[in-house]
Amino acid sequence: MSGRLIGVGTGPGDPELLTLKAVRALNEADVVAYFAKAGNESNARRVVATHLTRGAAEFPLLYPVTTEIHRKHRYYTSAITGFYDASALAIARLLDENRTVAVLSEGDPLFYGSYMHLHVRLANRYPTDVIPGITAMSGCWSQAGLPLVQGDDVLSVLPGTLDEDDLAKRLRAADAAVIMKVGRNLPKIRAALTLAGKLDTAIYVERGTMDGGRAMPLAEKTDDRAPYFSLVLVPGWRSRP
Amino acid sequence: MSGRLIGVGTGPGDPELLTLKAVRALNEADVVAYFAKAGNESNARRVVATHLTRGAAEFPLLYPVTTEIHRKHRYYTSAITGFYDASALAIARLLDENRTVAVLSEGDPLFYGSYMHLHVRLANRYPTDVIPGITAMSGCWSQAGLPLVQGDDVLSVLPGTLDEDDLAKRLRAADAAVIMKVGRNLPKIRAALTLAGKLDTAIYVERGTMDGGRAMPLAEKTDDRAPYFSLVLVPGWRSRP
Ligand SMILES: C[S@@+](CC[C@H](N)C(=O)[O-])C[C@H]1O[C@@H](n2cnc3c(N)ncnc32)[C@H](O)[C@@H]1O
Ligand SMILES: C[S@@+](CC[C@H](N)C(=O)[O-])C[C@H]1O[C@@H](n2cnc3c(N)ncnc32)[C@H](O)[C@@H]1O
Repeated sequence: MSGRLIGVGTGPGDPELLTLKAVRALNEADVVAYFAKAGNESNARRVVATHLTRGAAEFPLLYPVTTEIHRKHRYYTSAITGFYDASALAIARLLDENRTVAVLSEGDPLFYGSYMHLHVRLANRYPTDVIPGITAMSGCWSQAGLPLVQGDDVLSVLPGTLDEDDLAKRLRAADAAVIMKVGRNLPKIRAALTLAGKLDTAIYVERGTMDGGRAMPLAEKTDDRAPYFSLVLVPGWRSRP
Repeated sequence: MSGRLIGVGTGPGDPELLTLKAVRALNEADVVAYFAKAGNESNARRVVATHLTRGAAEFPLLYPVTTEIHRKHRYYTSAITGFYDASALAIARLLDENRTVAVLSEGDPLFYGSYMHLHVRLANRYPTDVIPGITAMSGCWSQAGLPLVQGDDVLSVLPGTLDEDDLAKRLRAADAAVIMKVGRNLPKIRAALTLAGKLDTAIYVERGTMDGGRAMPLAEKTDDRAPYFSLVLVPGWRSRP
């Protein structure tokens, strides 16, 4: 007998977008772990809150202040690596006590998710399951009612952290695109979309499927403020039969 | 009062990967519609079967034989367009009778899904909701336990129907890739991955999250047989901190 690690996708924000399998995992877990910033409520925890009534132990993994340091700073990599190593050790100790540990992950765990840092450190040593979640992009194009790709369309998923020319080049090459990590990158993203001639079809979605979520044509957004939970969609499927 | 159209994502195959919201929609629907080939069970219907006990009317939309005709054949486009027009008319009649019509869609409805053909014909005329589903690719990389993208990674989603050179070029340009619609395109996909120098990291997944589902390195697959439900994953995240 040994413990079991479960990466649990919690979806884009609407608690009803949890899967039946995620709900079952939360009911069976001895420990529910999640990443959070000290002093901030974890969003993934908020999404599953109504399913945590059974009294499983909670295990917050608190990011060190390094997330405020630029990721190109010389100490950033070693500090954040140290944090993931320490988190994996803490989870390993629970697994060694034969506990079932569910690690919450916003959206889908293996798609730009912080759970991945635990997965690569633990999945080769402990029985591990990953329960997929609805991605932020699926939540956003569904909320916007926007058909994204069909037939032979190529979709590019682009982090908004890329530089403007790289973004523009990749936007030109794809039929459809999703730009993640918008936040303070919005002016640059707007410029790249303009260079690629795709600003007029781009849809901006903020807090998709959450309370207060909204979608609008990016060209109609008059300011450059975007919260952490926002992304941009460029739909494909130009030749609808 | 008018009817309501709901596009319901049914996920990659495991019935437990339905969302709570999809289950509620199935419970509230007056009619449950789905695309199918005459004589074949609908896969989406099979996934939701245990939730269809309440006696909602079922409304199969049966593809004409045109799906066996090559899509570049001169009559293909008009025949398939006619089929989608007729299907939309049939659903519109139900909506005009103020029924709530849930249309099942494998995976996520607005991501290469046939529901999209109804959506573009009806969503501007009737109240419409789209409930996102777990995509096939999320189901497959979760089953394989394969971290797909992290940080600044660019992901390309490529239909296996593209030609070999185009596939190779796009595989080279992206950090990570998902190749959908594998089936009889597998030899070409293998060749494109070889050209792009990425055959050694490619993972082949067949019937992901379904009974008998399996994942393996594509380089270790010794034959070129692939069922309809298969895709290829090329993971990113080469520099794991
Ligand atoms: C670190 S990634 C996590 C992605 C997640 N694992 C998934 O499967 O979608 C965080 C980014 O996802 C996007 N995001 C997450 N939730 C969102 C939401 N509800 N609405 C809009 N964007 C969201 C934002 O672009 C944010 O910068
Ligand atoms: C028309 S697309 C539908 C995609 C779906 N709407 C989604 O959100 O993933 C069909 C393709 O999805 C892939 N697919 C669907 N289900 C799958 C599964 N369970 N395992 C592997 N591939 C699957 C195959 O590549 C297939 O050719």
